[in-house]
Amino acid sequence: VAGDPRALIETVRRMYARGWAPGTGGNMSVVVPGPRLLITASGVDKRVATVDDLVVVGLDGVQVAGTGRPSAETAVHLELVRWGAKAVLHAHSVWNTLASLLAAGRGQLVLHGLEMLKGLAGVDTHEHREVVPVVANHQDTTVLARAVHRVIAEHPRCHGVLVAGHGLYTWGASLVEAERHVEIFEFLFEVLVRAKELPHGTVDLS
Amino acid sequence: VAGDPRALIETVRRMYARGWAPGTGGNMSVVVPGPRLLITASGVDKRVATVDDLVVVGLDGVQVAGTGRPSAETAVHLELVRWGAKAVLHAHSVWNTLASLLAAGRGQLVLHGLEMLKGLAGVDTHEHREVVPVVANHQDTTVLARAVHRVIAEHPRCHGVLVAGHGLYTWGASLVEAERHVEIFEFLFEVLVRAKELPHGTVDLS
Amino acid sequence: VAGDPRALIETVRRMYARGWAPGTGGNMSVVVPGPRLLITASGVDKRVATVDDLVVVGLDGVQVAGTGRPSAETAVHLELVRWGAKAVLHAHSVWNTLASLLAAGRGQLVLHGLEMLKGLAGVDTHEHREVVPVVANHQDTTVLARAVHRVIAEHPRCHGVLVAGHGLYTWGASLVEAERHVEIFEFLFEVLVRAKELPHGTVDLS
Amino acid sequence: VAGDPRALIETVRRMYARGWAPGTGGNMSVVVPGPRLLITASGVDKRVATVDDLVVVGLDGVQVAGTGRPSAETAVHLELVRWGAKAVLHAHSVWNTLASLLAAGRGQLVLHGLEMLKGLAGVDTHEHREVVPVVANHQDTTVLARAVHRVIAEHPRCHGVLVAGHGLYTWGASLVEAERHVEIFEFLFEVLVRAKELPHGTVDLS
Repeated sequence: VAGDPRALIETVRRMYARGWAPGTGGNMSVVVPGPRLLITASGVDKRVATVDDLVVVGLDGVQVAGTGRPSAETAVHLELVRWGAKAVLHAHSVWNTLASLLAAGRGQLVLHGLEMLKGLAGVDTHEHREVVPVVANHQDTTVLARAVHRVIAEHPRCHGVLVAGHGLYTWGASLVEAERHVEIFEFLFEVLVRAKELPHGTVDLS
Repeated sequence: VAGDPRALIETVRRMYARGWAPGTGGNMSVVVPGPRLLITASGVDKRVATVDDLVVVGLDGVQVAGTGRPSAETAVHLELVRWGAKAVLHAHSVWNTLASLLAAGRGQLVLHGLEMLKGLAGVDTHEHREVVPVVANHQDTTVLARAVHRVIAEHPRCHGVLVAGHGLYTWGASLVEAERHVEIFEFLFEVLVRAKELPHGTVDLS
Repeated sequence: VAGDPRALIETVRRMYARGWAPGTGGNMSVVVPGPRLLITASGVDKRVATVDDLVVVGLDGVQVAGTGRPSAETAVHLELVRWGAKAVLHAHSVWNTLASLLAAGRGQLVLHGLEMLKGLAGVDTHEHREVVPVVANHQDTTVLARAVHRVIAEHPRCHGVLVAGHGLYTWGASLVEAERHVEIFEFLFEVLVRAKELPHGTVDLS
Repeated sequence: VAGDPRALIETVRRMYARGWAPGTGGNMSVVVPGPRLLITASGVDKRVATVDDLVVVGLDGVQVAGTGRPSAETAVHLELVRWGAKAVLHAHSVWNTLASLLAAGRGQLVLHGLEMLKGLAGVDTHEHREVVPVVANHQDTTVLARAVHRVIAEHPRCHGVLVAGHGLYTWGASLVEAERHVEIFEFLFEVLVRAKELPHGTVDLS
């Protein structure tokens, strides 16, 4: 398998260890020379994932290496790669699930006024307003990919997309940057949801 | 001892490490050839459990191997095995205790609209409605086993049963599947309880 | 140093690792042959504690071994040993601090209806009502010891005492039992405080 | 590099591991012979930081060793060193962010009545009132340094300063003391914020 599959597996296992990919949930990919996409196979237990749990697909989605079946959500990864992502991470966590549910009705959430925003690529002030689009969940991942296409066309500078009741897609110019984006968003979502638990009017983040 | 007792002990220790079996609480079993049930002995500290802390009982509940006393809740495990479970895990956690208390008055809780539901065997959409029956707690485990019998007869497709103020029973076609079900339910219960802490009407999960 | 100082140090380090003894807080002791009390020295960082951080005092409080100064709260430990404790653990945690503050006005909190209560020595049903006395905090530990004396005289079957805004004293017939009691109380306090965060009337634990 | 850079790196990694320095956030320093300041370089991933990620600056802010660029917040560290700090730690955590937001409107928060306060240098009673000034966030760190100067001039006995939506600066007479102060403040902020989540009037900490 081309590229550096071990680096991807280390990211996968860290994401499991931090509660960002329980069950067999979550899927992770990185663009490798070709260009092609190295991506976790479907139904893999992230706690014990190894390089044998990765597959390679062309940017057209056709599998070219690996014995597993590509993640069902490969279509969304490829959509994000088309917009320039070099690595895509899909995380399921308690905090991103709650954040997605909080914002589902409005179709987006806005993060503002927090220094941690500067961990997102290209953001250099806490005064930045980060719009995180929230799309409806759908079991047909081509529908999901089209929804992701629409919201990114509308918000081309966003760093992540939430799927309601489902999880976060984020990406980066490298695997390291994508993993940092997961960490940043998880922090921000936890702050956002906990702030909502405080008495009304105590803290207003958006 | 027959079957693979080491795999069961690894599950037991992981459950302790994740806060799902504090004190000497929790009990775990797996069906082994015979068929018989390999189950944790009563009063074992799960942090330091070894294969010597396991016993074997026949499906009639009679102990056939091991020096400890079978878990007091063996009757519930055997009831679940009669319905087809190949492994049964009983977890005590803060989140499943709170979920059980929240739902005790209604006799069940319903999980709906969350992608993580797909981690339950046979569930293929977040639109699935998972009914989790909640039975009253009782120190006579034959009473508890009968209550479990009744709710499973009523909800034969459920994946877990809560005992109010006590914990979760879940199971699977294998030990791996049962452990995944614990992980899925713990995630779902945490989301459910945290959603209840948000301002009224913000998030409605059922 | 007599007894098994390594077992005490392992308990001390586990308590630190679980967030039950941050800063240089907390103090831990076990009765050793003599009888004498093996106890953590004052001001020890529990993360890196070794057997050199333990001292031995007679049951009259006079130091007989060890180079450190006995914990300032030795008087409370000795009071509890007089009531039969063979090991005493004083834990500071977020959850026991919050529980102590919640109950400070009433002078006690009552835990009831939770299976986890059975992890306390001699408790065999979730219907047990565990009264946890709460005493006011005081920097003069002889005053604290007298307060502990009074509440235990009143509640001789209790398994722990909270000091308001300060922490939990619990004990056992052995170090293992005392550590299990910490684990049980931490679980119960977390459930109790989180239940209070839920909408009024949703869950009533006492 | 002078001083003991390995001790600083161990502190940096522990802070990452405990969620106090996610992303590439946070910066940490210690005064070394000269006197000079050994400080983390800008943009370092704290999870994998090594001594090569440290630089040395004079107390006038001029870099004298190390290949990285000094942390953007060096000016604040140097301001605190001028007031006598021998080590300065800047932590970003969910709890200190929430505490800073809760108190931002009033310009300070007050911690009172908690035994854990005694973990702060020179505090010997829970009756101590610890004022934690909160300054507005600013991307110009010389502005931030001047704001820190003003609040410390006003509260010369404080042990930490919060930056709204950003994080905590704390310090000590040694690196060990500074790290203990982070641990103490993180505990206190978590208690403070969780107490606010409880029903109004249940717990009043200030």
